[in-house]
Amino acid sequence: MDMDGVVLEEGEAIDWIVFNRPKAANAFSAAVLERFTALVKDRQTNGAPVLGIRGNGRGFSSGMDLGQYSATSGPTSDVMRLSSYVERWLDLWRHPKPIIVAVHGYCIGVGAQLASFADILVVADDAVISEPTIPIGGGFIAPAWTSHVGSRRAKEFAFLPGNRIDGRTAAEWGWANCAVPASELIACCESLAQRMKLVPPAVLTMKKRSINRAMEAAGFHAALSAVAESDALLHLEPEVSRIRNRLKTEDLKAVVKDYAGESSQEIFRRHQVRAAEQG
Amino acid sequence: MDMDGVVLEEGEAIDWIVFNRPKAANAFSAAVLERFTALVKDRQTNGAPVLGIRGNGRGFSSGMDLGQYSATSGPTSDVMRLSSYVERWLDLWRHPKPIIVAVHGYCIGVGAQLASFADILVVADDAVISEPTIPIGGGFIAPAWTSHVGSRRAKEFAFLPGNRIDGRTAAEWGWANCAVPASELIACCESLAQRMKLVPPAVLTMKKRSINRAMEAAGFHAALSAVAESDALLHLEPEVSRIRNRLKTEDLKAVVKDYAGESSQEIFRRHQVRAAEQG
Amino acid sequence: MDMDGVVLEEGEAIDWIVFNRPKAANAFSAAVLERFTALVKDRQTNGAPVLGIRGNGRGFSSGMDLGQYSATSGPTSDVMRLSSYVERWLDLWRHPKPIIVAVHGYCIGVGAQLASFADILVVADDAVISEPTIPIGGGFIAPAWTSHVGSRRAKEFAFLPGNRIDGRTAAEWGWANCAVPASELIACCESLAQRMKLVPPAVLTMKKRSINRAMEAAGFHAALSAVAESDALLHLEPEVSRIRNRLKTEDLKAVVKDYAGESSQEIFRRHQVRAAEQG
Amino acid sequence: MDMDGVVLEEGEAIDWIVFNRPKAANAFSAAVLERFTALVKDRQTNGAPVLGIRGNGRGFSSGMDLGQYSATSGPTSDVMRLSSYVERWLDLWRHPKPIIVAVHGYCIGVGAQLASFADILVVADDAVISEPTIPIGGGFIAPAWTSHVGSRRAKEFAFLPGNRIDGRTAAEWGWANCAVPASELIACCESLAQRMKLVPPAVLTMKKRSINRAMEAAGFHAALSAVAESDALLHLEPEVSRIRNRLKTEDLKAVVKDYAGESSQEIFRRHQVRAAEQG
Amino acid sequence: MDMDGVVLEEGEAIDWIVFNRPKAANAFSAAVLERFTALVKDRQTNGAPVLGIRGNGRGFSSGMDLGQYSATSGPTSDVMRLSSYVERWLDLWRHPKPIIVAVHGYCIGVGAQLASFADILVVADDAVISEPTIPIGGGFIAPAWTSHVGSRRAKEFAFLPGNRIDGRTAAEWGWANCAVPASELIACCESLAQRMKLVPPAVLTMKKRSINRAMEAAGFHAALSAVAESDALLHLEPEVSRIRNRLKTEDLKAVVKDYAGESSQEIFRRHQVRAAEQG
Amino acid sequence: MDMDGVVLEEGEAIDWIVFNRPKAANAFSAAVLERFTALVKDRQTNGAPVLGIRGNGRGFSSGMDLGQYSATSGPTSDVMRLSSYVERWLDLWRHPKPIIVAVHGYCIGVGAQLASFADILVVADDAVISEPTIPIGGGFIAPAWTSHVGSRRAKEFAFLPGNRIDGRTAAEWGWANCAVPASELIACCESLAQRMKLVPPAVLTMKKRSINRAMEAAGFHAALSAVAESDALLHLEPEVSRIRNRLKTEDLKAVVKDYAGESSQEIFRRHQVRAAEQG
Repeated sequence: MDMDGVVLEEGEAIDWIVFNRPKAANAFSAAVLERFTALVKDRQTNGAPVLGIRGNGRGFSSGMDLGQYSATSGPTSDVMRLSSYVERWLDLWRHPKPIIVAVHGYCIGVGAQLASFADILVVADDAVISEPTIPIGGGFIAPAWTSHVGSRRAKEFAFLPGNRIDGRTAAEWGWANCAVPASELIACCESLAQRMKLVPPAVLTMKKRSINRAMEAAGFHAALSAVAESDALLHLEPEVSRIRNRLKTEDLKAVVKDYAGESSQEIFRRHQVRAAEQG
Repeated sequence: MDMDGVVLEEGEAIDWIVFNRPKAANAFSAAVLERFTALVKDRQTNGAPVLGIRGNGRGFSSGMDLGQYSATSGPTSDVMRLSSYVERWLDLWRHPKPIIVAVHGYCIGVGAQLASFADILVVADDAVISEPTIPIGGGFIAPAWTSHVGSRRAKEFAFLPGNRIDGRTAAEWGWANCAVPASELIACCESLAQRMKLVPPAVLTMKKRSINRAMEAAGFHAALSAVAESDALLHLEPEVSRIRNRLKTEDLKAVVKDYAGESSQEIFRRHQVRAAEQG
Repeated sequence: MDMDGVVLEEGEAIDWIVFNRPKAANAFSAAVLERFTALVKDRQTNGAPVLGIRGNGRGFSSGMDLGQYSATSGPTSDVMRLSSYVERWLDLWRHPKPIIVAVHGYCIGVGAQLASFADILVVADDAVISEPTIPIGGGFIAPAWTSHVGSRRAKEFAFLPGNRIDGRTAAEWGWANCAVPASELIACCESLAQRMKLVPPAVLTMKKRSINRAMEAAGFHAALSAVAESDALLHLEPEVSRIRNRLKTEDLKAVVKDYAGESSQEIFRRHQVRAAEQG
Repeated sequence: MDMDGVVLEEGEAIDWIVFNRPKAANAFSAAVLERFTALVKDRQTNGAPVLGIRGNGRGFSSGMDLGQYSATSGPTSDVMRLSSYVERWLDLWRHPKPIIVAVHGYCIGVGAQLASFADILVVADDAVISEPTIPIGGGFIAPAWTSHVGSRRAKEFAFLPGNRIDGRTAAEWGWANCAVPASELIACCESLAQRMKLVPPAVLTMKKRSINRAMEAAGFHAALSAVAESDALLHLEPEVSRIRNRLKTEDLKAVVKDYAGESSQEIFRRHQVRAAEQG
Repeated sequence: MDMDGVVLEEGEAIDWIVFNRPKAANAFSAAVLERFTALVKDRQTNGAPVLGIRGNGRGFSSGMDLGQYSATSGPTSDVMRLSSYVERWLDLWRHPKPIIVAVHGYCIGVGAQLASFADILVVADDAVISEPTIPIGGGFIAPAWTSHVGSRRAKEFAFLPGNRIDGRTAAEWGWANCAVPASELIACCESLAQRMKLVPPAVLTMKKRSINRAMEAAGFHAALSAVAESDALLHLEPEVSRIRNRLKTEDLKAVVKDYAGESSQEIFRRHQVRAAEQG
Repeated sequence: MDMDGVVLEEGEAIDWIVFNRPKAANAFSAAVLERFTALVKDRQTNGAPVLGIRGNGRGFSSGMDLGQYSATSGPTSDVMRLSSYVERWLDLWRHPKPIIVAVHGYCIGVGAQLASFADILVVADDAVISEPTIPIGGGFIAPAWTSHVGSRRAKEFAFLPGNRIDGRTAAEWGWANCAVPASELIACCESLAQRMKLVPPAVLTMKKRSINRAMEAAGFHAALSAVAESDALLHLEPEVSRIRNRLKTEDLKAVVKDYAGESSQEIFRRHQVRAAEQG
């Protein structure tokens, strides 16, 4: 059974909420999000002491299901729609249990936003965390990154079209706790959960609340206060509308190709290597 | 003379306050804390331009002297007792001189809280910085870490029982400025102090105040606002009381064993290595 | 034509504002600053989608033109003068375009303050970013660093006279996005700009505003609130006045020599190596 | 039909959610709270442009249903239970519509906490807003008041047992927008809603979000970060337990009598008058 | 000479910048704003120790010159345009001199935003401070009010179309320092300036900076971080566009009439009086 | 016995710390401050449940003992000296008991700073709260006021030389909880304490901590971060030095006279009345 594209796998130390629409690249449809939120809430009082989130198939998630955006609905309802994403992820932040997110394969756009709200984030070495490949919105994802990686890297990540980092870089930047080989990703999270299981759940809850409070004192919450406004506003920017219109009439690959190219990290490496070769 | 377990070693560039109860693993008894605070205050206007803090014996400090906790005193007095630790460390933060903390060997619980208030922190490569080995409190230490290492690592550190990092990891995380071999720890701090000595003391004071102000704008102070409440509350959690009661009747080693196991960094390395071996 | 020591080089993807007083080590004279600000404002609505800032000659900038300071003007006018630097750099922060700063050679004092306001910062491997060589002020530069490198490293950097890091360390600390060989510095920035050029300018503007807002929620602005007061106050500190007076009568090199010595990173490396040699 | 003690009255300009357990003094039972939250969420996308909240019977609400507290559940679950109140009221804060709360008669404890989250608050002249009559918790309500009335009055209100202010004082303090005669309370709110109805709903939503953001920048959210911890902790304070135990064995009136007496405002007036009489 | 609608009147204790387009109701045209900003900057280092701002004619200002808004320019350029207002008012906030704003007659929309940045604000008893009469934007003005009047009154003011308060209410709310009869408005400000003139200008500057810093710690700056985004977004809301379109084809008075009606304070008074009459 | 100018009067509900150097107008000498701090700390664990602070003689306090300032000590030691005042008042803020400050007669400068840290503040109707009569410092007191009265009134209070408000105005502004006739001042505070005595001390402690935390979230602490720098800096302003020098050679009354004149509230009333008379 599809279960609206999200399944629950119960374990002794960790329960997994698994995005399970591999054919749709685990894009977040309305049904997926509703089911996801319901499962997250259910786990507040049920199940294993740790909650895990991952994706089935070749990647974690391709992010928003673009079919859901409708330019005709007005910018304020767009703001409310975008805010609802952040509210869903904040359910993770406020959840009484430690939440481990395991990212493999692609992790795009809002998928990379969700991951910023994990308590512990483990990524596969070869995961590719990226901005949407086509610049049709903005100011929505990077602010949640800023609390983890600082503004330098948040801006670097956000300013290049379809910019991306691999899992190793994500761990170096401190966005993730660690990068491990993809084949060990789930096992590694389960090892962590096995250890956490020994701590009384109440202690885990209070530790999480206390560190969250420290992050909120450092602006975690406030950083998110107007991300929906920024994105909704860009949806109405004429140049962005032109790109969106191209998507209706042209082949997706053709549009993507116009923005494709090196990532910032690839640019840095190329110039580092070139000098070495010439040196 | 024992001097209540803390001694002052005066130097030209740096005065050292040295925890000196090696048989008690430099645990912070009430007498130690009073003497420590008195020495810290005395150095505000006396002595060398830099103040150092370190421990004698096999480690920096094993943290709180558990004998001091009394469940019968009521949670609010427990809050006030816990707050008094933070107030003592804030004396370091507000101190007019640069304060270098040198950590070697074990550095546990409240010892690792103290170290978060140092201006400059140098650790021995093989130092072991750890959570208390038995989970009988919480939410007290990690918030002070969050300002230095972010929430990802603060949570990773806090969620596993008796979790620990070595000195090299502490430097990689940015919790410490640098890790050096244990044999060079004191000499390295003295080298730093020799250089600082050339700066007029007033300049050092104003630089410290100005950077502290920046940290406070980023929530350093606010992060600490309810750590005492979190910990005191957990002291009354039934499951925590059960563990405390075990400590009264069972052998300490037996209890410790129930929570012993890999650290988070050991888990990460094991999974990284395993894949490499199988690859 | 000298153009007051600052020239504009227009490009397709990136316009460069170039400090061009190599004989004066690109010190910021009043004329340089006025011209710089005028060019920055002009680029708000004109030119390429990305704005770059760099220096001609052997380094980025040696910082303040000390000739500008006059002890007779009163501390409050000194505060206003110092605030005007921060206001100029905030023009970069508030600028609608992404701003890339490229640092090579020396980058001293207020030069290292300016760089903290860049959106993207690329440094040459062998760049030397440093505090002023003589401790005649303070509390002015490091608070802007704190948002990028934390208090540990901000204090380490600030407390040693003439302390300095090279480009590689700047990138490791997260102060810069990346360090590349000096010969590739400009090309690397141009590569980044070429990619950014594909993003609609409005999207870049909103992304920058959104990440800035997150940084401001984390105290970026507030960190700067009293840096001018700190510095102005130290200008009147008797011990600082004595050093200033020496500068009027003695050879500069003689004064510099009194404060010269190892940097903190050199101290750390020396102690790391010594143990290895003895081990 | 009782509808779990909460009813919805739909109107053209304003829908009213009405607490309707007059015999239980509109105490917030679990069932009431669940129904309340469901109605609040339903009104996000349905009904009139303005949402009102009021109580049926002789008062707005007597606050928590004390039967719900169980000392045996552990302090952390008490924290989560208390946090759930704040989360419910934050649903009002985040609601897309303007929310008018109309307070008449008694408004006690958590009832006075709820009212702090209203957008517009209108009170009856003779309403009595009060702390719980018996001091068996604390630190839970006043922080939400502080954003509206400052610390002086929040402390005055909180420090006297069963302290209370009438509607006129609530308006003078700025806790309420206005006090009107009880007979005009509902009509006054409806008049406000009639005017608001002319503003496009999207404009009202964005205005509310924008002002909320300003309040959050001034700490509204952060003020609430540990109120649950404070209250849960006091529930375990021995002296508080003694009072709770009295409530199980003694007549409620006898216990209330021990804490009864003048309010702070009555004390102020008495001393003002006495001097006038003697003058 | 018109001087672009703004004139400077120099005095001994106070210089006045006077809006002087009475026929255009002192609306802020681009020319007016440029001239205003130039005068404000010029007064940083020239003239009397106090700076005053007022309007000539029947009122202070009717706010934005609506002719300046162009829906075709794209929302991001609208954001930048709106931000430029806030930047201009922040020049008052950062100005080294005390700034007294004197408000008489009408003070609408952005006029009421400007006044929020005054150091001292004196209003005529019968001044009418109001929201724009037609709801075609939002979230732009009230956040700057929130720091002065709290969220309760900011929301009350913002949620009714064309809502307004008179000078006396403005003083009661603490938005203004005092309300005086219109005939005494200028004389009163001059009396204040005569007294301030006795304080050394440097002392006034530092006092202003210090209090501003306290306000910024309380979120004054952060409250303004996304007001431009809110307003720009509403400019594109379909329902708002419909109203704007009506303005192009219908008589202004007809449109205004659709939104005209009681202010919130009039509603409150009506219900207070009605009960009294019936009582 | 003089007891260094401060005496302790113990009571059942409230202990009073009383400034008792009436001949010196209760100026804060070093001895007074040391004794004051010692008594405050002693009362943390001893005595009545409420702590009161008042002055003997004709007023509360005339503020700093000017004899203590020495221009030769260097600005940084001046900063540390000034910070020590704030630290002493923060002992009141952090004190576990409610602290009531009772102000009668004059309350000048640092006296009015102390009062800002009270939990409950009661003033005599005819008390005169004022800035120092001669403008020889600044930026030190008003930031602590800002949290209570907002920036409008803090600036009004601070910008006029020797500006002052009476007790009634202090209560209207919300700086004080209430103004009562001088003859009732102590009795009124005792009445409040009698009621507070019924609340378990632990509950009072936690309520105070919780409201303080809310105030700190609203910037109370951060507002104080650089007040010492502002004041120390002005002490070195040439124009301020000139005034200080006059004080050494001229009669105090002659200097005071140069700055004497109407308060801001007197100016407002004069202009309100004049219009009424002419109307």
